[in-house]
Amino acid sequence: MTLKEWVAIESDSVQPVPRFRQELFRMMAVAADTLQRLGAHVTSVDMGSQQLPDGQSLPIPPVILAELGNDPTKGTVCFYGHLDVQPADQGNGWLTDPYVLTEVDGKLYGRGATDNKGPVLAWINAVSAFRALEQDLPVNIKFIIEGMEEAGSVALEELVEKEKNRFFSGVDYIVISDNLWISQRKPAITYGTRGNSYFMVEVKCRDQDFHSGTFGGILHEPMADLVALLGSLVDSSGHILVPGIYDEVAPLTEEEINTYKAIHLDLEEYRNSSRVEKFLFDTKEEILMHLWRYPSLSIHGIEGAFDEPGAKTVIPGQVIGKFSIRLVPHMNVSVVEKQVTRHLEDVFSKRNSSNKMVVSMTLGLHPWIANINDTQYLAAKRAIRTVFGTEPDMIRDGSTIPIAKMFQEIVHKSVVLIPLGAVDDGEHSQNEKINRWNYIEGTKLFAAFFLEMAQLH
Amino acid sequence: MTLKEWVAIESDSVQPVPRFRQELFRMMAVAADTLQRLGAHVTSVDMGSQQLPDGQSLPIPPVILAELGNDPTKGTVCFYGHLDVQPADQGNGWLTDPYVLTEVDGKLYGRGATDNKGPVLAWINAVSAFRALEQDLPVNIKFIIEGMEEAGSVALEELVEKEKNRFFSGVDYIVISDNLWISQRKPAITYGTRGNSYFMVEVKCRDQDFHSGTFGGILHEPMADLVALLGSLVDSSGHILVPGIYDEVAPLTEEEINTYKAIHLDLEEYRNSSRVEKFLFDTKEEILMHLWRYPSLSIHGIEGAFDEPGAKTVIPGQVIGKFSIRLVPHMNVSVVEKQVTRHLEDVFSKRNSSNKMVVSMTLGLHPWIANINDTQYLAAKRAIRTVFGTEPDMIRDGSTIPIAKMFQEIVHKSVVLIPLGAVDDGEHSQNEKINRWNYIEGTKLFAAFFLEMAQLH
Repeated sequence: MTLKEWVAIESDSVQPVPRFRQELFRMMAVAADTLQRLGAHVTSVDMGSQQLPDGQSLPIPPVILAELGNDPTKGTVCFYGHLDVQPADQGNGWLTDPYVLTEVDGKLYGRGATDNKGPVLAWINAVSAFRALEQDLPVNIKFIIEGMEEAGSVALEELVEKEKNRFFSGVDYIVISDNLWISQRKPAITYGTRGNSYFMVEVKCRDQDFHSGTFGGILHEPMADLVALLGSLVDSSGHILVPGIYDEVAPLTEEEINTYKAIHLDLEEYRNSSRVEKFLFDTKEEILMHLWRYPSLSIHGIEGAFDEPGAKTVIPGQVIGKFSIRLVPHMNVSVVEKQVTRHLEDVFSKRNSSNKMVVSMTLGLHPWIANINDTQYLAAKRAIRTVFGTEPDMIRDGSTIPIAKMFQEIVHKSVVLIPLGAVDDGEHSQNEKINRWNYIEGTKLFAAFFLEMAQLH
Repeated sequence: MTLKEWVAIESDSVQPVPRFRQELFRMMAVAADTLQRLGAHVTSVDMGSQQLPDGQSLPIPPVILAELGNDPTKGTVCFYGHLDVQPADQGNGWLTDPYVLTEVDGKLYGRGATDNKGPVLAWINAVSAFRALEQDLPVNIKFIIEGMEEAGSVALEELVEKEKNRFFSGVDYIVISDNLWISQRKPAITYGTRGNSYFMVEVKCRDQDFHSGTFGGILHEPMADLVALLGSLVDSSGHILVPGIYDEVAPLTEEEINTYKAIHLDLEEYRNSSRVEKFLFDTKEEILMHLWRYPSLSIHGIEGAFDEPGAKTVIPGQVIGKFSIRLVPHMNVSVVEKQVTRHLEDVFSKRNSSNKMVVSMTLGLHPWIANINDTQYLAAKRAIRTVFGTEPDMIRDGSTIPIAKMFQEIVHKSVVLIPLGAVDDGEHSQNEKINRWNYIEGTKLFAAFFLEMAQLH
């Protein structure tokens, strides 16, 4: 089974180490080979290399551009996917080896199973089905597949810009399948995603650690500064405390509220499948709005402090706090960068600390929103009715899929997100999985979508 | 050179993993062998095993009890030392391999070089010198050497209690050399140490992490709770905010202030050697008092959050914050435990978080203070005059050497701390070292001390 082979490749793009980069190159080569065997015309575009903040230089895995069919009477659908994954550390909560696809009760566990190797293969499987039946493809198909999505799609924008009038010139529609449903069984179509701005705040006394017995009591300790800085960002109700941060958030209309009311979301089931006792909000509408149309701030962790089991009496000499703000229409990445930096500088200056603080935004990704009356939205709805016998939930996604916004802005083509995975797939967390049922029905859905696109185009 | 061989053994007692435990057992066996070859009568006491919070059980390395000489007309001095070390991670700031003793400009770099393998060997070398010269030892010598000091001297107290009327019955004085001078060149004698209380505060939503895109905005995020809890502990001037924490701190007398004034401490040199731009206090007296006679609170780090380089958009599902409070006379460990727990419960309850919080004190060590007019204090002063040609600084230590307090309370014998290492040795931090000069003069000092003890006893 191909998904098993693909999951076995440790294509982690987040940890900037040579071993994982090699795995990424291997992943892209395997995918290019699969597409070639399908009869596609495949180009692997050299993406050069990446300069890291520490001076290290790492090669960027190639982007695959592939084409299958070139009939001018047919519509052309371009599928975007990524084959890199989030870090996965066996032992840290994983019940199975994250890089060995393991089926338990109809669930296929493995890093990348749902984000995004499974959906990429479902699309390939749908194309293969037409090939196997010796049927003509109802649409021309293009693929753009990258290996740096989890690290911010490094250098991809430049490539899309360059290919705007070449590879993308014949493309009518762009499909992405890189998010999840909001229920376990009901399919969905996604018309908007949040952006993201990722911040690092470094506090440094010196580059060496201290012993808390020898120095505790006389130092401006970097961890005390950092904890105060991180503690100034968000209150216990989830409200972000950075001044001005809500200024550009789109005003809420009555019409928009109605779209949330129409959505099926069983809060009880959602809580159970998430294994969360209590959310910040009690109604379906509030929860959806705080996932989709309001910004959120999460503190991810601290680099440079003591992070292992046991008790170490260390005063870390320099520490880096990491947090991010999910952005919504019509927040602006560079305005947010300024607001956060100014706020942290304010808080820090009030502490009169002798340490050095440096704030940097290492990733800035725009939010995206689409027109849900475009042809391919209607085609996707009809395909879902055919395969699942139900209307889809029309949803947004709280995650960032910056490529959607990018395609819209650069290529000026309609973008739709057709997720395949269930709400409890655990993308980015331990024990990521895709259900066997979702994987197979998803393949059928893409095949039906090709047929509907041919009719509507 | 024996110090090189001893440093090469990765006897890390802090990280509770089998590999390091095996190294600890090897370390104790090597030391027992060295003492046996010196002619000592050596017993390696089986210490049983240790139950960890996660249910794991690990064996505790044996404690060495050794005796050399049994002349009832002579005094008996017992030397305490430990051969376990703090964790050391090459790459994380170490310029040389921490487990390869490396000499650079007269400095011997390596984990354990100054804490505490070097001083233990200096004592052994002093004894060897008398042996090599075929001279009678001026005093009877006993050794108690353990391998769990950095992990809180697990099970040692029970052993000392048990040996009170056996191994310790003939002991007149106890010497410990497990701390540092407060200057680069001037020796010191230590008559007090701070205690320590190490806390873990766990905040849990669920045992799996979340993706910040999928859940950011609707969760009581454990990191937000934890950062608020840690931020409530100490202000930017180093003042501890736990109610009642200063209640039992010994009142400051005029006489005590005078002892600080008499101490030689070049603040400029101290700052330079520490590579700290600015301390919390500007005078010698304030700095000494906040290191020795006032409590301090340090935040060490967070377990379970994202701690690696790069950017990961994770919401950690459960996190453990680690901090400790250094205790001074006459603070009480169990009172402090109650105060801290109550304070954190207060702060947490005000957040109305749906997460679970658990506070635990995993280590509680009493402060210690001695009578500086005891015989062995006078002998140590005279030996220092002989070897170094100067009066020692009479100091306390901000670090915890719980064994000092324990010997005083259980064995009822006078305890003295005679440090050998310079202020910039970097115990517990990266690039720990002992100066070759300190190591050799320290050996002479111990030999001179034996002779002075024989005279004064």
